[in-house]
Amino acid sequence: MKKILVIGIGAGDPEHVTVQAINALNMVDVFFVLEKGAAKRGLVALRQEICRRYATGRSYRVLEAPSPKRDAQPADYEACVEGLNQEKQAVFESLIGQMKEGECGAFLAWGDPSLYDSTIRNLDAVAAAGRQSIEVEVIPGISAVQVLAAKHRITLNTVGRPVEITTGRRLREGWPVGADSVVVMLDGEEAYRRFVDEDIEIYWGAYLGTPDEILVAGKLRDVAEEIHQARTAARTAHGWIMDTYLLRKG
Amino acid sequence: MKKILVIGIGAGDPEHVTVQAINALNMVDVFFVLEKGAAKRGLVALRQEICRRYATGRSYRVLEAPSPKRDAQPADYEACVEGLNQEKQAVFESLIGQMKEGECGAFLAWGDPSLYDSTIRNLDAVAAAGRQSIEVEVIPGISAVQVLAAKHRITLNTVGRPVEITTGRRLREGWPVGADSVVVMLDGEEAYRRFVDEDIEIYWGAYLGTPDEILVAGKLRDVAEEIHQARTAARTAHGWIMDTYLLRKG
Repeated sequence: MKKILVIGIGAGDPEHVTVQAINALNMVDVFFVLEKGAAKRGLVALRQEICRRYATGRSYRVLEAPSPKRDAQPADYEACVEGLNQEKQAVFESLIGQMKEGECGAFLAWGDPSLYDSTIRNLDAVAAAGRQSIEVEVIPGISAVQVLAAKHRITLNTVGRPVEITTGRRLREGWPVGADSVVVMLDGEEAYRRFVDEDIEIYWGAYLGTPDEILVAGKLRDVAEEIHQARTAARTAHGWIMDTYLLRKG
Repeated sequence: MKKILVIGIGAGDPEHVTVQAINALNMVDVFFVLEKGAAKRGLVALRQEICRRYATGRSYRVLEAPSPKRDAQPADYEACVEGLNQEKQAVFESLIGQMKEGECGAFLAWGDPSLYDSTIRNLDAVAAAGRQSIEVEVIPGISAVQVLAAKHRITLNTVGRPVEITTGRRLREGWPVGADSVVVMLDGEEAYRRFVDEDIEIYWGAYLGTPDEILVAGKLRDVAEEIHQARTAARTAHGWIMDTYLLRKG
């Protein structure tokens, strides 16, 4: 049996790490790092900083593997994600195959492992394949959504009302029925611009929790262009961007 | 100017506290505690344990006030919440009025301050009233929703799909249109039982992160009665219950 931890490490600030996560980091023999290319090198550096700062209780080794890349504009999105996950599962299985019996391995998940993260799903697939005997434990982490709300000093929901968390891809198909508060993640194409003529407030943030953090809030029609400009400039400067936002209707 | 921190302290396990929250706890001169009666004494005890364990860097004082109670079955829910919040704002203002200029005060928020928590809204109202000059900073915390997902080793969303976070009150009105993953909070009346004949998975948890934690998962039709029994027995034994669950269709 091999123990695998999925540890949520927060959204960018090493101080988002919980005491539970620090204790977990200090049980780890092997950290797995999926390298996502030059553009995401900053993210790998944060993971290394977290290990350096908190995993001080014992020696550990780091196993790196290239992360399979997906087509940015696939014809069939679900088939593409499915194929990508099969490749990732093979990478996961190969990494876990390099652990010794009784060891503890860990994947560090950006934000919280429960939200738009494939780590748990890929580990389920490795377990189901049956060639590796693993026991999985998940440690929650502060998500970018929570940092967004904290930095803007807002709640995600209004009194007694629901909040929908969705993707840019879904939002491009239309406003979610019945929702007034909508959190949008994984939006590479600024889906909010579709609603610029409606009575909506936007609370936007990029590189949340990092020294490069950018925050913009206001009536969507008033600040959409400011967000577009800031986003474009920052993506050019950094080579990548991670952003998320809350839209609130009238 | 008085500094007010709203610190998310996690869902029940003192180890949910982040490094950022610990640093914030050690800046505090005055902790505000709203006592919610005998039934919630366990929650106050956890807050005290968190202060005892982590706020070790300096001396502080604790100001307690009774938390206004609301009607459990109001005729007009929104008017009731509105009235309750006005009472709470008066309590907040009175507590803040007992701080000296330049001091730092803190409210410890259960879970994350961004989700079904009135602290930020009430502080906004105190600031708007203009009798206290306050600067508010929010520190995110691990929510019960994240602990639920972690303990069940699941993600909240399925691949590329949205997740709706809502209340038991809303769910009783019907299944949210277009949603397949629905997280339910603040459900005192087991609204899930309405959907027991549909093809739905439930992941339920009570007292998440505490030694009293209970987890049940499965097809809703198979486990609804087990959850009902466990919930009823636990509420009788403890005098109170805090639970949350994820419903997943099809």
